[in-house]
Amino acid sequence: MCQLLGMNCNTPTDIIFSFEGFHRRGGLTDEHSDGWGIAFFEGNGCRLFLDYLPSISSPVADLVRAYPIKSKNVIAHIRKATQGQINLANTHPFGRELWGQQWIFAHNGNLSNLPALEHSRFLPVGSTDSEHAFCWILNQLAQQFKTRPDLPQLHEALSKLVPQLATLGTFNFLLSNGQALFAHCSTKLNYLIRQAPFCRAHLSDTDMAVDFSLETTPKDRVAIIATEPLTDNENWIAMQNGELLMFIDGSPES
Amino acid sequence: MCQLLGMNCNTPTDIIFSFEGFHRRGGLTDEHSDGWGIAFFEGNGCRLFLDYLPSISSPVADLVRAYPIKSKNVIAHIRKATQGQINLANTHPFGRELWGQQWIFAHNGNLSNLPALEHSRFLPVGSTDSEHAFCWILNQLAQQFKTRPDLPQLHEALSKLVPQLATLGTFNFLLSNGQALFAHCSTKLNYLIRQAPFCRAHLSDTDMAVDFSLETTPKDRVAIIATEPLTDNENWIAMQNGELLMFIDGSPES
Repeated sequence: MCQLLGMNCNTPTDIIFSFEGFHRRGGLTDEHSDGWGIAFFEGNGCRLFLDYLPSISSPVADLVRAYPIKSKNVIAHIRKATQGQINLANTHPFGRELWGQQWIFAHNGNLSNLPALEHSRFLPVGSTDSEHAFCWILNQLAQQFKTRPDLPQLHEALSKLVPQLATLGTFNFLLSNGQALFAHCSTKLNYLIRQAPFCRAHLSDTDMAVDFSLETTPKDRVAIIATEPLTDNENWIAMQNGELLMFIDGSPES
Repeated sequence: MCQLLGMNCNTPTDIIFSFEGFHRRGGLTDEHSDGWGIAFFEGNGCRLFLDYLPSISSPVADLVRAYPIKSKNVIAHIRKATQGQINLANTHPFGRELWGQQWIFAHNGNLSNLPALEHSRFLPVGSTDSEHAFCWILNQLAQQFKTRPDLPQLHEALSKLVPQLATLGTFNFLLSNGQALFAHCSTKLNYLIRQAPFCRAHLSDTDMAVDFSLETTPKDRVAIIATEPLTDNENWIAMQNGELLMFIDGSPES
């Protein structure tokens, strides 16, 4: 299995603090050492950093730790391979363009007997169940909407599509088009909203703390979504099995 | 305008030496300081590093200079903006998936009155003429071939599509699906084949040299393609205007 990390905010924010804890689970505090990746939306653009090395020893992870990229939507993943070899093509997050928007997807779980894709528009480059599932979802959305739908329409469409795959195994995932971040819990996913009054947060995976009241404005709101809580002194909320949340501007909508 | 750098080889090779000279043209030895990017194919996968900072002062460029990623197909670009703002969505190279393969494209030039894309399958995320042209080419290929064609078929199809855009302005570009690297010269593009007997090469943009006979095997063959020659003591070949070459395993086919 793998671990997921997502961030959705109302103002561009860096993910340095959360990533400092998260990347340690890729070979140091946990066993997810079969590659890792992180995607940052910046305006309409998106930067996707991937490495098949464990995040704890990856030069690309060192760059991400040192380079505070500000983004309103971030998706990161550390991999413990279940299906597919350890190589770049099988490294999450996966990206595709649909309706002139970048779409980014990362998955924690394992799916069997996925519907065939054949000659459909989106096809996997690698051999994971995860990229296959992502392509299936995008194919379905592209068939339903010839032009870009609004976010409530997208949320409704996904709430009908996702259960069809969730019956095939474990399907915790994060999905974003840069406007919203969709989080689906099949077995395990937690989230946290940071907003005023901001306070001090302490990481679970290393002895490091940040006082967010010194780094924020009163209007800032940041949602962090993670497989396992990243801090040990904040109010993480466990998502329910089968729950699909759409995060916009740091707030969840069910 | 911009500058292009491509590499196509018969064995995975790092591009550290060429990039050392090339990245200096992004703000030091030349004026192409409106962002830069580089894509490395690795197996079926592809890593795309982008930054809107000048390559000479980009932390991402420092990573690429220090991290010898071995690849058979690389495309890099430093930008001097002509159309579109300086932001990530307008930063080359651009990437899309077609027939289960990653496709990467970078352009030097300026095109006007491009054919409309409307609701076509591939749409630009940013606002450059370059990404628009890339999407048009992929839309045309996707319509012509429902499944992945072989390389000679691709080459023939591109040799009919590309002249349609080349009449609309300056259209020097590099395009790769990880199997072959297509290079089109509209006004300026040079290439070089390094093969046995390998010798010492000296960069034009800084006083740095490498003796490739110490770093290669007799079977290695590497093609380097660049807007301006990167070394001052090797036999660079100027491509002809209107010429489209398909590089495979370090060799060009016209």
